[in-house]
Formats: sequence, C-alpha cells, structure tokens
Amino acid sequence: MKRIVFIALALAAWTASAQPRNNVVPSFAGAVEDFQPGLTNQIGRQYPMVNSQGAVRAQLRAPQASSVQLDIGGRRYEMVKDENGVWTGTSDPQDVGFHYYQLNVDGASVPDPGTVYFYGAGRWGSGIEIPSADMDFWQTKNVPQGSIVEKYYWSKATESMRHCYVYLPAEYDKNPGKKYPVLYLQHGNAENEQGWSAQGHTGQILDNLIAEGKAVPFIVVMDYGQGQNIHLVGEYAEQLPQPQPGQRASNDGFQVVLLTDIIPMVEKEYRVIADARHRAMAGLSMGGGQTRRITLANPTTFAYVGMFSGGVMSVEDIQGAKGFQQTNKLVFMSSGSKENPRVMEAAESLKQIGVNAVGYISEGTAHEWHTWRRSLYQFAQLLFK
Amino acid sequence: MKRIVFIALALAAWTASAQPRNNVVPSFAGAVEDFQPGLTNQIGRQYPMVNSQGAVRAQLRAPQASSVQLDIGGRRYEMVKDENGVWTGTSDPQDVGFHYYQLNVDGASVPDPGTVYFYGAGRWGSGIEIPSADMDFWQTKNVPQGSIVEKYYWSKATESMRHCYVYLPAEYDKNPGKKYPVLYLQHGNAENEQGWSAQGHTGQILDNLIAEGKAVPFIVVMDYGQGQNIHLVGEYAEQLPQPQPGQRASNDGFQVVLLTDIIPMVEKEYRVIADARHRAMAGLSMGGGQTRRITLANPTTFAYVGMFSGGVMSVEDIQGAKGFQQTNKLVFMSSGSKENPRVMEAAESLKQIGVNAVGYISEGTAHEWHTWRRSLYQFAQLLFK
Repeated sequence: MKRIVFIALALAAWTASAQPRNNVVPSFAGAVEDFQPGLTNQIGRQYPMVNSQGAVRAQLRAPQASSVQLDIGGRRYEMVKDENGVWTGTSDPQDVGFHYYQLNVDGASVPDPGTVYFYGAGRWGSGIEIPSADMDFWQTKNVPQGSIVEKYYWSKATESMRHCYVYLPAEYDKNPGKKYPVLYLQHGNAENEQGWSAQGHTGQILDNLIAEGKAVPFIVVMDYGQGQNIHLVGEYAEQLPQPQPGQRASNDGFQVVLLTDIIPMVEKEYRVIADARHRAMAGLSMGGGQTRRITLANPTTFAYVGMFSGGVMSVEDIQGAKGFQQTNKLVFMSSGSKENPRVMEAAESLKQIGVNAVGYISEGTAHEWHTWRRSLYQFAQLLFK
Repeated sequence: MKRIVFIALALAAWTASAQPRNNVVPSFAGAVEDFQPGLTNQIGRQYPMVNSQGAVRAQLRAPQASSVQLDIGGRRYEMVKDENGVWTGTSDPQDVGFHYYQLNVDGASVPDPGTVYFYGAGRWGSGIEIPSADMDFWQTKNVPQGSIVEKYYWSKATESMRHCYVYLPAEYDKNPGKKYPVLYLQHGNAENEQGWSAQGHTGQILDNLIAEGKAVPFIVVMDYGQGQNIHLVGEYAEQLPQPQPGQRASNDGFQVVLLTDIIPMVEKEYRVIADARHRAMAGLSMGGGQTRRITLANPTTFAYVGMFSGGVMSVEDIQGAKGFQQTNKLVFMSSGSKENPRVMEAAESLKQIGVNAVGYISEGTAHEWHTWRRSLYQFAQLLFK
C-alpha cells in the first residue's frame, strides 16, 4: 500500500511541475469551428478561445517574430502568422477542467496577454478552462453569498507576516453568537494560497451547496504550504519532523506553521468550534500528502481527512497513529479517472477495520482542478454532520 | 475653474490609457550598479530589479528573438542579448511609486514573467515599485490586521452578479454591536476593483493609521467603476443622466449601480451607520471625476468627498448643488507635484464660501499610485471625526 502512496505522490509532483517541453507539433488541423472566448479571458479579449472538442486556439500579434508556439498539456503547437503579423494556433483537444499554459515567442516563455493569471506550475501565468458538462456546481449564482477574506497575521514560527484566505459562509455575519467548524484546505505543489479560491472556486462551491441544504455552513482556511519557501526560525526549526523514507522533508515546515500559527490565529480571530470533532484538513496532490502526514502525526487533532489526488491512507498508517481512529469521522480519498491511485480499493481496506472511508473517482478528468473541485463538492457534503 | 477640471480629467485619461510607444531608446548607460530585486517580483525571481536611481533593469531569456525591449514610462528601451540568449535592459530613472510596464518581444507586447500582475492600463500585466523614502506607511506591519473581503452580490441595475472588495477594520469582528462609517473608494481609468487593495495597499494604510490612533475605524468599499463595461438594463438604463458638455456619458452607469446596488448591499450586509454624515466617497483620476459628479448630483448623500488627481470642485459647482454645502464636512483635493491641477488654489476658493476644503500636494510624485496612497493616508485621517 505504501508503494501506491509514493507512486501517486511522485505522479502528482511530476504533473504539477514544469516538464521538458521538447514536443513541438503542428497546430491541430481537425478543429470544429465553433470556438468561443475562454471563460478566464481578460475583460474584452476574444482570444484565447475554446471549441466543443476542448481544443484551445490562441492568438498573438508579434510582427517581427520568427516562431510563436502555444505551450499546453506538455506540447508546443506551432502557431502561424498572417499578413498583419498576427499569429494563430490551435491545440489538440484537452481534458475538461483547468489547464495552466503559456506562449513561446522566439524562445521566450511568456503569459498569454489574453487571459487573467493564476499561480501554478511555480509561476503566475495563463490558465484556461475547458468547460465540462457538470460545471454548474461551481458557477457564481444568485444565492446567499459568503465571503473570501484576505487575512494577514503574525507567524511566530517564521517571524514574519503571513497571509491566508478565509471563506466565511453567508450567514456568518448574521449570527454573531454562533460558532462554526473549520476546514483547512491546501493547494498542490508549485501552487499557492489563492489556488482554492481562484482555480478551485471554493466560495462558489460552498455557497451553492449551503444554499441547497447539501452542506452545513463551515469556515474554510486556505494558506500557503510550499515547504521550500517556509523558513522556520529558532526553536521552531528544531521541531521539523524527521522525514520517513521516500518522503520529502522540505515540505514539513508547513506542519509547524499550521499548528503554531494558523490554527491558533483562526480560533482567535473567528468564531470557531475549537475541537477535533469540528476540525477538518484536506488538500490536493502535494496538499493531500501533507494532509496525510499532518493528520497521522497529530492523530487527535482532526476528525475529518480529505486527500484529493494525493495518495491514500493505509490500514497500517491508521493503526500506527494512536488515537486517530477514535477521533476520526471520515477519511475521504479521491482521484481523477485518468489518474490511477486506486482510491476505491484503499477505501475498502479501511472500511474493513471500521474506518468511515469514502473513495471517489472523478470521471473523465485528470490531475487538475476540475477533479479537485468535484472532490471538494463531494467531501463538503460529508463534513460536520 | 471648469476648464481646469476638464484639463485634469483629460490628462488623467491620457496618462492611464495606452499611449503610442514609438519612442525607442538605448538601454540607460548611467546606471549605478546597486540593483535589488523588485518589491513586486514573483517568489524566487531575481528580475526585474531596481537601483537607487529608480532605474529598472529587466531580463528575459529569448534565444531566437531579434529584438527585446523594456516598455516603461512611455519609452521602449532596447535590451541586449548575451551568449546564452538572455536579454537584459535598463530604463532611465523613473519617478518613485508604482508603474505599469511590459516587455516587447519581436513586436509582441507581453507581461514580464518576473513580476506578479496588476490590472491597469486596461490589462492584467506587470508592475514595478520604485521605492520612496516615505513608503513605510503602506507596509504590512505587526499591528492589528483588518481584512480585505471579496464579496459577490446581485445587481438589479445590470441583472448580473457583481463583486467588490470590502476593507473591514481589525476590531470589526470583535464588536458585534458596533456600526461603522463607510468610504466608497474608486479606481482610475482602465483599472479595476482590485487596484486600491493591490496597488494602493488600502488595507495596510488603514491598519497602520488605526493602530496609531490617527484614523477612526471605518469600512472601505472598492468596486468596479469603468462605465463602458457597466451595462444597465430596463428602467435603470433610462436613469442615466445626460452628459454635460465635455463630460463622458459612458461612465455614468457607475452612479446608477452605486446608488441602486452597492450602497444598499453594503448597508444590508455590514454593520454600517447609514447616513450621509458617515458616508464618504473618493476616487483617483477618473474615479475622482466620478466622485465629483456623483456627489454633486446627490448633494445630500455623502458628507466627505475626496478627489485624488481627479480635478477640482469649484464654487459654482457647490453652489449649484442644493444641499451639498449643508451636508458636506470635507472636500479634499490632491495631486502629485509633477501634475498641475492647482488643487491648493481650488481649496482656497472653496474655503472662502465656508467649505471645509483641503488641498494636498504629493511632493515629487506624478500621476500614479504613490500619489494616491499618500492622498488616502491624508484623507483617511480627516474622515468621520
């Protein structure tokens, strides 16, 4: 079982990181001509466009360039210049969901000036949404609206000001005497604390679920967990747990910050039910691996655990973490159907020792945000009930 | 006096809009070699850099390009390629403060991959900060932290979901029985609702002022005011005021949305003292012009008025707006010293009819965000006292 975890984590890291981009191919010739402007375009911009096949068409004015390429999904598609110096190129059909991409102008990799920008693959850059049949669940609708709050706080463990994003449900301000459960929700490798709100549409997913009565109102905290960029100081640096074989030690700084700074800040600044029964942690990809390690290392701190495309927990994991099973109310493990981490099988194994384990496969999706939005949509309905 | 208003507004629109960029010059040869990474760089990026003269040095890898330029402050500086295909170029010294800029690769204008991105000049793109001696007042400090809240709401006037950013002071959640005054604070031409928090550092400025006891705690609402992109429907479209000579009618849609949707939403969703005495409006450049028109057209709605690099109000303006002077507690007009809108003279004229008018000149700055941060810093100390 451990082997599956490591394969899944390795796959996650590989997929989310910058890949070699040697695979230069011609612009897709079989595109159906029903292109529409992308959902993540800047206001007033026609390009990039997406068609019903999921093909992406980009356009850039570069009169003096000798080569312009559309760099998406691990391939570079050659774009073609017209008489006005405008280059156009079309990708092969992409999986539904959200994809980071860029343009390449005479060897320079740059954002597409047509889109708004997202943090992923270790940089602020372009992203494009390939619409899916079920995307309604994360649209902004005229239902009671929660808030996404940008919150700065002092971190003792790093001796610096950090900041996070906090989702507060619509009713929060209307119920000054009510306290709420909290989900700590982490991004993937080379992403940041804005991923879950911007690419993940956490606010829309929860507003819609709560409005339909499918989820109870709760708070979500989204912070920055990229361990290589979390520099602990003093006694906190010494708290870093020793890495187990095959694990990356560098990411464990987040555990110290989460327990030292983030949870205490949240429980001081917001109206929170501050016990394990009302505390959940989840994450995608690398964030799922962090969730696994942190919840096992702190087995009586979180009752709900979610790992989205982030490997699985084994029977041995749970039996080795004293108090975990007594505290735990849910272990949720999900994956896109185009990944292969055997989450359903892992959930079956956990059920046999009495864990409330749920496996979920996102049909037709890969290691990207639509898998994770769907995972949050499923997971949120199981929390704090 | 009206002529001054129109000149100032025309200057504002011209400065903030895309300008012809024909002015190609060599990279600055006189740079002092004390360059440091920019304050708005992406995490882990060394370039762009800024030196003690305020010169900007950009770098881009573009091995096959034949020309790469640094496009800032109305000039394009020729960058030079080294043996590894990396282009480097340096601008002349820039004014202190915040500047939008871009790179040009063989005729393609693209964001610099080294910076985070800001919305201005009608696009998401690169920005760079030239440090100023007084920049301490907008830094993130370990003082009680307010929140910047992203809030979606239904707009009747446009029949769409809109969203705004709301600054809540640090004490807001701790005082569930207390109500607060509100400042409605608008961006400039071709900017958006994120400008005041991202480029303007509104949250930091107010947190710091409140912590020092220099400002009373109040709420700030920052919404999107670019009239050309506000599409009123039905009866609301008919409410559009007729343009006066020299004014742009297209921007008045914001007035309808402000009065129909934004103010009622804010007064419903937040704990607000909902009267003119506790309601302010201010804006920069185009937003200052909107503030002038909206507060004069609704003379008993706002007690505090701020126009930052946004023209001036005249004696005739105020005497023509019935009830304005009885309601008004402050008319604040500011400008960078490198602009020339004669705000001090205008304030003197207004004082002579008994208006509490304040003129403010931001020394050494031009038509950009440091002028407006300083203006907010001054204005905020005069509000709701």
